[in-house]
Amino acid sequence: MDLVWISVMCGILGFATVAYFVRYVLRQSQGTERIKEITSAIHEGALAFIHREYRTEIIVMVVAAIILALIPALGWKTSVAFIFGALCSMGAGYAGMNMAIRSNGRTTAAAEKGLNQGLRVSFRGGAVMGLTVVSIGVIGLSILYFAWNKDPNFLAVIPAYGTGASLVALFARVGGGIFTKGADAGSDLVGKVEAGIPEDDPRNAAVVADFVGDNVGDVCGMGADLFESYVETVVAAMTLGIVGVVVAPDAIAPWVMKLFPSRSAEAALRASWWLPMLIMAGGILASVIGCFAVRVGEKVEMAALLGALRRGTLTASILTALFSLGAIYLLKAQLGLFWSVLAGLIAGVLMGESTNYFTSYAFKPTREISQASTIGGGATIVRGFAIGLMSCWPPVLLVAVATIIAFYFASFYGVAIAAASMLSTLGVTLATDAYGPVADNAGGIATMAELSPEVRERTDALDSLGNTTAATGKGFAIGAAVLNALGLILSYALAAGLVTVTPEGRITSPPELSLLSAPVIVGILIGALVPAIFVAITMKSVGVTAGLIVEEVRRQWREIPGLREGKARAQYDRCVDISTRAALKEMLAPSIMTIIVPILVGVVLGKYALGGFLISSLATGFILAITLNNAGGAWDNAKKWIESGQFGGKGSDAHKAAVVGDTTGDPMKDTAGPSLNIMLKLMSVISLLLAPVLTRFPGLF
Amino acid sequence: MDLVWISVMCGILGFATVAYFVRYVLRQSQGTERIKEITSAIHEGALAFIHREYRTEIIVMVVAAIILALIPALGWKTSVAFIFGALCSMGAGYAGMNMAIRSNGRTTAAAEKGLNQGLRVSFRGGAVMGLTVVSIGVIGLSILYFAWNKDPNFLAVIPAYGTGASLVALFARVGGGIFTKGADAGSDLVGKVEAGIPEDDPRNAAVVADFVGDNVGDVCGMGADLFESYVETVVAAMTLGIVGVVVAPDAIAPWVMKLFPSRSAEAALRASWWLPMLIMAGGILASVIGCFAVRVGEKVEMAALLGALRRGTLTASILTALFSLGAIYLLKAQLGLFWSVLAGLIAGVLMGESTNYFTSYAFKPTREISQASTIGGGATIVRGFAIGLMSCWPPVLLVAVATIIAFYFASFYGVAIAAASMLSTLGVTLATDAYGPVADNAGGIATMAELSPEVRERTDALDSLGNTTAATGKGFAIGAAVLNALGLILSYALAAGLVTVTPEGRITSPPELSLLSAPVIVGILIGALVPAIFVAITMKSVGVTAGLIVEEVRRQWREIPGLREGKARAQYDRCVDISTRAALKEMLAPSIMTIIVPILVGVVLGKYALGGFLISSLATGFILAITLNNAGGAWDNAKKWIESGQFGGKGSDAHKAAVVGDTTGDPMKDTAGPSLNIMLKLMSVISLLLAPVLTRFPGLF
Repeated sequence: MDLVWISVMCGILGFATVAYFVRYVLRQSQGTERIKEITSAIHEGALAFIHREYRTEIIVMVVAAIILALIPALGWKTSVAFIFGALCSMGAGYAGMNMAIRSNGRTTAAAEKGLNQGLRVSFRGGAVMGLTVVSIGVIGLSILYFAWNKDPNFLAVIPAYGTGASLVALFARVGGGIFTKGADAGSDLVGKVEAGIPEDDPRNAAVVADFVGDNVGDVCGMGADLFESYVETVVAAMTLGIVGVVVAPDAIAPWVMKLFPSRSAEAALRASWWLPMLIMAGGILASVIGCFAVRVGEKVEMAALLGALRRGTLTASILTALFSLGAIYLLKAQLGLFWSVLAGLIAGVLMGESTNYFTSYAFKPTREISQASTIGGGATIVRGFAIGLMSCWPPVLLVAVATIIAFYFASFYGVAIAAASMLSTLGVTLATDAYGPVADNAGGIATMAELSPEVRERTDALDSLGNTTAATGKGFAIGAAVLNALGLILSYALAAGLVTVTPEGRITSPPELSLLSAPVIVGILIGALVPAIFVAITMKSVGVTAGLIVEEVRRQWREIPGLREGKARAQYDRCVDISTRAALKEMLAPSIMTIIVPILVGVVLGKYALGGFLISSLATGFILAITLNNAGGAWDNAKKWIESGQFGGKGSDAHKAAVVGDTTGDPMKDTAGPSLNIMLKLMSVISLLLAPVLTRFPGLF
Repeated sequence: MDLVWISVMCGILGFATVAYFVRYVLRQSQGTERIKEITSAIHEGALAFIHREYRTEIIVMVVAAIILALIPALGWKTSVAFIFGALCSMGAGYAGMNMAIRSNGRTTAAAEKGLNQGLRVSFRGGAVMGLTVVSIGVIGLSILYFAWNKDPNFLAVIPAYGTGASLVALFARVGGGIFTKGADAGSDLVGKVEAGIPEDDPRNAAVVADFVGDNVGDVCGMGADLFESYVETVVAAMTLGIVGVVVAPDAIAPWVMKLFPSRSAEAALRASWWLPMLIMAGGILASVIGCFAVRVGEKVEMAALLGALRRGTLTASILTALFSLGAIYLLKAQLGLFWSVLAGLIAGVLMGESTNYFTSYAFKPTREISQASTIGGGATIVRGFAIGLMSCWPPVLLVAVATIIAFYFASFYGVAIAAASMLSTLGVTLATDAYGPVADNAGGIATMAELSPEVRERTDALDSLGNTTAATGKGFAIGAAVLNALGLILSYALAAGLVTVTPEGRITSPPELSLLSAPVIVGILIGALVPAIFVAITMKSVGVTAGLIVEEVRRQWREIPGLREGKARAQYDRCVDISTRAALKEMLAPSIMTIIVPILVGVVLGKYALGGFLISSLATGFILAITLNNAGGAWDNAKKWIESGQFGGKGSDAHKAAVVGDTTGDPMKDTAGPSLNIMLKLMSVISLLLAPVLTRFPGLF
């Protein structure tokens, strides 16, 4: 029997669990009329944004698909796979976001009953996203597998699926990121700072846009990001098998046959495809069990809640390791692959913990920023930036060690398997992650609906737990993106014929790929530049969007009589509309740059320079992404630490300095940093997809 | 005749010009008694710091020299060259700083007479630094050449000279940088922000420490930095010749003989040594002429002053190009080398201009930051950071293009020659650069000596011109450091046997150096990490030092009766002492890291991984250095643009936000950014020096 059926069954199990959670959430009370009204405003705004975003995306997709179909080396099946990948990603993001929005108001209503009830609704709302992403991912890949695995063009079909997902993810992260932080910053500037009214005050026309932003950016964007990582790790591992057996059988097949001792190269190839699919299948099963392990008694403390979430992810990790061992045994593969699996799993967990250490105010680094805030805004920024840079060492060393281990035991394929195993528990880790924005929005709705302060206190507690899981999730997302991009780059190198692998798994390559040949050096120099420019553009875009929001809110206060006094209702939809248009306009430049630059480097400087370019972008982008993410997170929490009564508390000079840090960090951690993840993956997968074409250009030297 | 005598003669001409300028400056009036008093306080403080810094350095030097002497592959001559390089660097920095301090007060006094008189004194004070650095550099290298050029250990001797200079430069940049920005930030925080007294007010005990900092950081540190770059470009070019002819004659000598068509490999080797020395000699001659071209009529506008400085550097560049063409003709070398020379010269000039565009308030980027400041501190930081990142593209592309051209015509040697030609006009470019801090200090002294506001206006005008030249100079320093480090890395690769070069100048290398072998990939990942950690440590150190200064100034206000009212004199020396101790303590960690990490990577991960590590550090460090430097410069000038009356002027909310940007940028542009230059060069030259040792470790794979 084709073992991929196991994956399909696990995917169906994932969907069944999703259905159970959806039913649970939808049965909960929708709350007061005011809550329903706000929820429906958020829903409308989010749908309006997503629909327009998807419209832009579909135009880009169709154009790209036509171009792909016209390239003789790729063909129409590549286009179909590309569109299919894009639609799967859109579907996963859409479903998850829709559910998150339905959970927001219900969480608020549940929080009226108690803290624990609020946690359950919000976590299950988030879990729908997590399990939907992994189930669609595995079933989508299985469909492609069953349809075309004997097709000679399968090597182009598989990366095309990843590229489609990647392009959607880029738009979702960049567009959603600009929307959410533009609206957030604009709303804060004009409300809290200028008018001196509280956050989420109904008189501020931008608050609904802010809520919408949380959903389209943090939920939908994060979902598309991790959907991409998830499927692309499988893509990378599968490609390595195909190149080994189909494209360069003499050079690489012996090595694949050594990893999967078999009578024929064909059998080894099948096994190399099945292993990542089985690891993912095991991960879904483990994630479902993990989600149900997030259970606590009726009366609990915050520490116990956090413990419950951690128990869920840890259970899933241990089970995945066991299932993977079973899969390796079943496929009679080399045991060395199990060490690659473990390296990926452990690195993923530790990377999340490291992020938590550097960004939570329970620990020293963030408290140091609060302390520096007593000196002034400049000191806050300098200290936070220093901590962001410093926080790079654990993730970089973890990825380095995981790469060394994976490489040692199974060369390129080991790296791809390590990336796959790191992401295999995504069902539950993404659940704990998507829970955060739900809790955040629930708090905002409580304020807007003018519920009792007690409810807001409970939602604040849920929100604070959400911040911890969100930080862990972000560290995990970056690490996964990097290991995944590395797997894709190695696949590109094999597919483009940059390297070959000996049966012992040693790399051999022509002198043109020498680290010190001129094209590679120039590729490395330019590679470091591109993430920097990408960050510069996206951060500027947030500023532009925020500026437009500020103007609109001011206009409404000027022109709508009674709004300032709370007697008239603000035109929330106008702000949503402005953010939507600005975000869609601003997302084009960085997206196009991400698509064009690797192609340009490959065509002008050659395929070897492109290798240097990709690796160098990865190294620099990794550092930038962690720095932006962790400095931003630490500034946010340093402000919260002061607000909890330290260093003079709210309204003190230290608080004002900390607010400067927070507003600086917002576009870093929620727009530029996460978008970098996708940029790195997209540039790698595009190179992989176009490898058959790029090999025809001679390059500069 | 040995052509190196030409270099010696040009070096002597440089010294003669220095003597002329020194005599000119010393003949100027020293100003009022109060000016003399302040000058002598600055002098004392600077000497106290430099002496203690040198004491620490000498201990490190002696230990390092003993270790080097004990390594059999290196030997005692290596130690002597190392110490000699360190002493030359110390001498150049010391002489330049001494003269700068003597020029400070004299510039103030001259500014009482008129703007033009002030310019002449300050420029000639700065030119002493510029010409001293290049003359010592060329004569020092000539001495080494004459003493040991026939010694079999010359390959280790030449890099040892560069390593000595590099280590001194690191201490000078890091220690001086922490001192200057710690004192500056501390002084501003406690004076301008807390007490609301003007900058440079005599009641602030930290002002003298601030002046001292300008001299030990910006003058002495910059001098040591560029002295290092200057001699190391020659080191890199010479090493390539030695490796080619002496170490690997079969593999590389034919290539060297093709660049310098000669009857024997020995003659080609000599020619490959003479070319960089002759380019440098021509550069000194051109710089001397350039310095005298900085002449203006008695009554002039600022634009004309800037034009005069530009005319000086441009004249020197054009003359150097001509002299280099003559040298190539004289040595009967391939004309292709001339294109390498031109690539370096032009890239250097354009890099300076690009920095000026991104950081001067005459242009759009900086004005955008001023505009963003009207929104708040967060917007100021985000916009400035985005502009800093964006400003990376011209320098990176310039270095990339220069590398491609140099490589195309003369492979590795071409890169080293491009770096040498970029730095050959250092005599005059450093003069325009060292002029800046002199003018800055002159203004501070005018305030402290309570001269008429008219004088302060004139010194402010000089200072503003100095900011432009300083920005240009910084862009130039980073570009020179990168091209220079690249040359050193390539020398390391040849010396460690990582690559060989075919007679056509093509690189060949074993598969272990493949871009995609595991050790190289891990080297690249870790390489990107190290500059980030270095920046994190140095920026934190500035904060620590500033904190100590704030405490001391507060203590003096509390304990010295009458100080606040201006009746008693502050204890300026205490603040100098505190900054000195803090800076020396804080500079140790980043310095030791810079020395240890490349050795560790080479020993643990192997010499191939070290190659990846160095190139990747270079690419990431380049991006970080430009970003820190240009964001810092742009924030500084965005504040000045507001102070000139835009967006509400001094005291407005926009100004407060701009001050946050300025204080954030200070440690970035004056401590972390410039120190990165040295870190990149030092790691490369240490690897080159230890190449014979590192080849004995097998590495990880």
